[in-house]
Amino acid sequence: MSIKETVNNPHSHWMEASGPEADVVVSSRVRVARNLNKSPFPHLLSESDARDIAHSVRLAIGNAEAGGGPRSLDLVELGELTPVERQILVEKHLISPDLLENFNRKAVVISQDEVISIMINEEDHLRLQCLLPGLQLKEAWDSINLLDDELEKTLEYAYDEELGYLTSCPTNVGTGLRASVMLHLPGLVLVNRIKDVLGSVSKLGLTVRGLYGEGTEASGDLFQVSNQITMGQTEEDIINALISVTGQIVNSERAAREALLRERREHIEDRVGRAYGLLTHARIMSSEEAVRLLSDLRLGVSLKLIDIIPANLITELMVMIRPAFLVKKAGKDISSFARDVVRATLIREKMGFK
Amino acid sequence: MSIKETVNNPHSHWMEASGPEADVVVSSRVRVARNLNKSPFPHLLSESDARDIAHSVRLAIGNAEAGGGPRSLDLVELGELTPVERQILVEKHLISPDLLENFNRKAVVISQDEVISIMINEEDHLRLQCLLPGLQLKEAWDSINLLDDELEKTLEYAYDEELGYLTSCPTNVGTGLRASVMLHLPGLVLVNRIKDVLGSVSKLGLTVRGLYGEGTEASGDLFQVSNQITMGQTEEDIINALISVTGQIVNSERAAREALLRERREHIEDRVGRAYGLLTHARIMSSEEAVRLLSDLRLGVSLKLIDIIPANLITELMVMIRPAFLVKKAGKDISSFARDVVRATLIREKMGFK
Repeated sequence: MSIKETVNNPHSHWMEASGPEADVVVSSRVRVARNLNKSPFPHLLSESDARDIAHSVRLAIGNAEAGGGPRSLDLVELGELTPVERQILVEKHLISPDLLENFNRKAVVISQDEVISIMINEEDHLRLQCLLPGLQLKEAWDSINLLDDELEKTLEYAYDEELGYLTSCPTNVGTGLRASVMLHLPGLVLVNRIKDVLGSVSKLGLTVRGLYGEGTEASGDLFQVSNQITMGQTEEDIINALISVTGQIVNSERAAREALLRERREHIEDRVGRAYGLLTHARIMSSEEAVRLLSDLRLGVSLKLIDIIPANLITELMVMIRPAFLVKKAGKDISSFARDVVRATLIREKMGFK
Repeated sequence: MSIKETVNNPHSHWMEASGPEADVVVSSRVRVARNLNKSPFPHLLSESDARDIAHSVRLAIGNAEAGGGPRSLDLVELGELTPVERQILVEKHLISPDLLENFNRKAVVISQDEVISIMINEEDHLRLQCLLPGLQLKEAWDSINLLDDELEKTLEYAYDEELGYLTSCPTNVGTGLRASVMLHLPGLVLVNRIKDVLGSVSKLGLTVRGLYGEGTEASGDLFQVSNQITMGQTEEDIINALISVTGQIVNSERAAREALLRERREHIEDRVGRAYGLLTHARIMSSEEAVRLLSDLRLGVSLKLIDIIPANLITELMVMIRPAFLVKKAGKDISSFARDVVRATLIREKMGFK
């Protein structure tokens, strides 16, 4: 699948509900920051230098594929995409919002299954990302590690024996690794324990963010937990620490859900039922309301209170209801009100209603 | 059907959606106040005097039936009913809340089809009521007039040649007639014209009240409009004036609905869709929310935006969701929270969901 196809298809492998601990862990992401040793960091690059970087990466992925690299990779310069298509890549979590700035200098590589993506000339020359459904941090790291080794056969990375990989921002120096999990924590929110639990996470040197990364608010009870420190630990240590903390959060969330079912069953059933009733019958729906209701529905599916909606559809809808996808579906730029109508229609249709 | 059956069956003839102008006019009611000329007014009656009045009425309805009176009538003393059963008669609009005070002195006559009821020893010795679906004020008056004539063959009414029928409260002296229509006016509420329209109604000497009569708030966009003046006009004049004003309100309401469909179609469809989604899927529902959603749904049925729910079911549900019916259904006294659960369950079941 080419990137042009990617932006037409709301589905990504990471949205599948088949991953481990999928009742709580939506997805796992590992990314490493890499820079080429003979070029200035991206914010200092001229436009033609930036093109050269993209060209080098194109060569490297060609060599990697020829050498039996694991996946079919497609590179596209962001300037070749429409604004809506670029935004869709953000909404699918395949690139960061930052890559959209000065997009003429930027490029992206995406694997056919959308598991691997490489942002070119974001904050660093390369940011290799692997995104998998459920709790699969080890698997994601293994994929990135393999890809990194393949690319290193062609590219000369900026690397310091003492410091490790050199990066544009000092917070990434060392491993250049950021591992994160996207967690669905409606139970902890409902029993008012979310602040406690996420507070302890922060004390362990991990960071909690909203759905679309740094600086965004948590919505739909979705929280992104990632490592803060990139130096002084091996990649395996970082990954294992995050897996361990994630395991504890998963247990707390499950305990909260069980307590809710035991003590406030009618309230939970009511919440889930109302979400289903509104999603399948409303005709105008804001993004905020849709995310909130889809979160309630996801909780209901995970508690087996509702069995007619596949969990992966809910994750897909969380992405499809965002503005760029709706504009793509409408086939033209539309007002905020028209988007709310298209959003409600899309949700009803996807859920089998007219 | 005996009165004991009446309190077990939520349906009444007046709830049927087949009456004229049923899209706006839920029901028409005519009642006359009558007193016996040799007894003090009810608030001055001893308990045994009160029993005598009930006895006289029992004789009179027996004679009326023997003389070919139009309907099979059943008399019951309120003390023979349980508190819940008495409350259900109020919720079905067959008796007034006032009849429940000092209920040991009170009795009620209800016709098999529940179209006719006679309250005994409420504010007056007799209050004859006829309640029909849709706009049928003339028909209701004809029924009451016929019944009144039949009873007068046995009972000696307090009547003054100059003043007309004498009543406990001076506001009823003369014809003793109160005619009213129950109107569903969601369109006028939504276009913010309800105050204007009902304001002009007041200027015409008519009174606007809520769903359960004097002193109650309008809920579910239901308004009761009735004549204020009982003297100096014939019964026919009073009825015709109310029919004429009702016709104007009906036209205004229909115009408001058409304007809404023309100018805010998505909003109306959204409102109706959400009401349907919540009514069929919520698990906990307050009386206030249920009435509001049923009103939205009734609007949707009348605008043909939704066709799976018969309009008479909506009117029936408006009555069934009230506290006494829910206690009756639960088979025991239950908490407010349990009522909200039983209410939601009842609505789902009646609407064909589980």
